[in-house]
Amino acid sequence: MALVHYPVVNRNSEVIASAITNLDLHDLARLSRTYNMPGCYIVTPLKDQQSLAKRLIAHWCDGVGKELHPTRCEALRCLRVVDDIAQVRQDIRREWGEEPIVWATTASRQAAALPYREARRQLSESGPKLILLGTAWGLAPSLLQSIDAVLETIRWEGPYNHLSVRCAAAILVDRLLGSGP
Amino acid sequence: MALVHYPVVNRNSEVIASAITNLDLHDLARLSRTYNMPGCYIVTPLKDQQSLAKRLIAHWCDGVGKELHPTRCEALRCLRVVDDIAQVRQDIRREWGEEPIVWATTASRQAAALPYREARRQLSESGPKLILLGTAWGLAPSLLQSIDAVLETIRWEGPYNHLSVRCAAAILVDRLLGSGP
Repeated sequence: MALVHYPVVNRNSEVIASAITNLDLHDLARLSRTYNMPGCYIVTPLKDQQSLAKRLIAHWCDGVGKELHPTRCEALRCLRVVDDIAQVRQDIRREWGEEPIVWATTASRQAAALPYREARRQLSESGPKLILLGTAWGLAPSLLQSIDAVLETIRWEGPYNHLSVRCAAAILVDRLLGSGP
Repeated sequence: MALVHYPVVNRNSEVIASAITNLDLHDLARLSRTYNMPGCYIVTPLKDQQSLAKRLIAHWCDGVGKELHPTRCEALRCLRVVDDIAQVRQDIRREWGEEPIVWATTASRQAAALPYREARRQLSESGPKLILLGTAWGLAPSLLQSIDAVLETIRWEGPYNHLSVRCAAAILVDRLLGSGP
């Protein structure tokens, strides 16, 4: 899984680098660990934001935080702070020996979206898979050119579809890896 | 759905009133609205915490926040700030004309837990249902005496099960009301 802070769009559809949200890091790390995912990348080219993320991880993994909450370190050490998606792909190639299949997520309904049932089937086959999650108003359209599929929108039935990236990530990971209802 | 800040336990299993987390309110409101739930109660007896929650809601529903993010108000107005669970039950009785069936959630596996499949079936029957979500280290044991069932733990297969309440709420609402994988 990769939480992307650049390139994403703002409310005016302009491409921006979004700021890191402390709780995104906690929630996605705990989700990754709970569902035994191999790792979660935090993607941002901004050096000060990378430092912030690394300081947060160090607080819970090196300092007094570790004694107070040992389970937080166990989760947060799943996080890997990187510059861009090229670095994520490179890291996966190095670790798994092959290119990942890359899936993106969006809150707007896509005609050719990959259904969760089919995604689960592909997950049961060998080879690394990478899921891109957008912050702010979602992944930049340019990103969607270089991926393998867009996952089905979580909730397209109603008129309102504005989940936080934390909740959306939890739902899609559960649909892909959970034992279901 | 009700997000309970009292009575919950801390890491030493002592009963406490937990502090409100800003993003819990946003995430649960957006989740409630996205899945067309009739409302989400924020339960805390602490008056200063109630004021905080109400100020947050007013910021997005009355002030400039509404112009910047109209969809936030649409979500946040689902929230109802109340003193205790008795008040939640009373509110539901007044609105729906009958007592709700009350389900609790816990991260520890229960012998007689209600499976999601059966909970979905019960949801398709008439009558209000209330789901209690605990903050901090979870709902106080005393609360579990006065409910109808404990929902199955979301993730009991692995050794690690520490989801945030935001992620846990999202997963269980999707399992109960979503269109599934």
